[in-house]
Amino acid sequence: MASTEQIVQFMRESFPGRTHDIVSTGDRTATLRQPVGEVHTRPGGTVSGPTLMGLADAALYVAIHATVGITPHAVTSNLNIHFLRRPAGDKAVLAVCRLLRVGRSTAVGEVALYSEGEDDPVAHATGSYALPRAIQPPTRG
Amino acid sequence: MASTEQIVQFMRESFPGRTHDIVSTGDRTATLRQPVGEVHTRPGGTVSGPTLMGLADAALYVAIHATVGITPHAVTSNLNIHFLRRPAGDKAVLAVCRLLRVGRSTAVGEVALYSEGEDDPVAHATGSYALPRAIQPPTRG
Amino acid sequence: MASTEQIVQFMRESFPGRTHDIVSTGDRTATLRQPVGEVHTRPGGTVSGPTLMGLADAALYVAIHATVGITPHAVTSNLNIHFLRRPAGDKAVLAVCRLLRVGRSTAVGEVALYSEGEDDPVAHATGSYALPRAIQPPTRG
Amino acid sequence: MASTEQIVQFMRESFPGRTHDIVSTGDRTATLRQPVGEVHTRPGGTVSGPTLMGLADAALYVAIHATVGITPHAVTSNLNIHFLRRPAGDKAVLAVCRLLRVGRSTAVGEVALYSEGEDDPVAHATGSYALPRAIQPPTRG
Repeated sequence: MASTEQIVQFMRESFPGRTHDIVSTGDRTATLRQPVGEVHTRPGGTVSGPTLMGLADAALYVAIHATVGITPHAVTSNLNIHFLRRPAGDKAVLAVCRLLRVGRSTAVGEVALYSEGEDDPVAHATGSYALPRAIQPPTRG
Repeated sequence: MASTEQIVQFMRESFPGRTHDIVSTGDRTATLRQPVGEVHTRPGGTVSGPTLMGLADAALYVAIHATVGITPHAVTSNLNIHFLRRPAGDKAVLAVCRLLRVGRSTAVGEVALYSEGEDDPVAHATGSYALPRAIQPPTRG
Repeated sequence: MASTEQIVQFMRESFPGRTHDIVSTGDRTATLRQPVGEVHTRPGGTVSGPTLMGLADAALYVAIHATVGITPHAVTSNLNIHFLRRPAGDKAVLAVCRLLRVGRSTAVGEVALYSEGEDDPVAHATGSYALPRAIQPPTRG
Repeated sequence: MASTEQIVQFMRESFPGRTHDIVSTGDRTATLRQPVGEVHTRPGGTVSGPTLMGLADAALYVAIHATVGITPHAVTSNLNIHFLRRPAGDKAVLAVCRLLRVGRSTAVGEVALYSEGEDDPVAHATGSYALPRAIQPPTRG
């Protein structure tokens, strides 16, 4: 239950190399936007797979912060991605994440990825994160 | 673009052992309902994993029929499923499928599975099917 | 670290409906064999997807028992399967499982599935199980 | 059936930004090595998830070239990765790929990823590629 502002600040400090923007966050949700530059494209003028995978992974991470509070030590345990359409090499990529389950020790979510302004997703990912025990509320006294 | 009625008839003839019902179908969508009996449960009074996996797979297959016409020879190439919550052993399971992409040779979709009457999904699957060439419209003449 | 004999007995008592045999088990490994009957085949004379998925899931479960001791409450959290070749409808299916990681709260493994007597796999699965806390050794006293 | 030398040259020309080395290739196999620098690490001194995902994806791509010849337009359709252990931030990552099936229109493979010098994998991926028709042998004349 961290605010978008808190998450933006945390991500900026912890991952200074990241170039995506956090568009919005909410309970179990997050939307990220990745501007696309030369480093993200591959021959043929499309966005590289690793760029999409990294963005999907980051969207899950941000949605977890938004839902259970800043959790720096959450780590990805699994990511599965289907590449659906060739992303436009000259459009930013939007990642819309929704968590399907947030348990004490794991979170699972899905992410739809779009070329900005398009209706059909370019990719769809699901993933799970292991949540460290530290985030668990004390169970007694 | 087969009707629900056509699909129900095809499934009944081709898979006489299947016990799920087809609740509804539409363009890129299908909803199936699996009544739960003794054969589908596992110790502890919950629905078995293979029952959920089989239902998710069937929902993708039905949604493909609904979208491109009856395609008996479509075959699953990949299925990925996250088990999210313990399904109630005394409730039917609903599978709500949405295709994310329907191409000439492959279709990809996602399926959310629910214990009937519950809001939170018990499982979430994504999968891809290989579509046989026969369904492709002729490209010339 | 349960013996094959112990696992066979546990599976027989807990899952009386299962029809596969446990061929062998070892540290982080298990091999299962599913005889194929009418209930496992689908039109066209091949083994159904749910049969393969259920067998892969069971192989992971058995390998966990073999590695950390009988763990009835281990539950599948994720299963991903690629269908590679059409299994012969008249041959048993072998599932060869190898665990890739066994941690305190999760286990991850891979399973190669073969039509008996064939060299090339008919399917390949990876999956993860959540391990209940009960199996953890006491940390003090 | 391209040689390692041919593949190295193709990758250098087509993906000048890539920083991994191709250690070896063979029929249905490839081994890649990713030296790890600042750009690949994340806070805590470990290798980033996108680095591992990108390397797994590249290993599949290289193994396809090695098996069916240089196929520039092969594209990833699905990638699934399990993160197993924290990779050392000061060791190169090795990706050992083995193709499980090479068909006319798709290839499926698995990739084990290791911190150099370690026995247990840090991650395990499976993935599928769509192969363009151009690589298919002519069916007539």
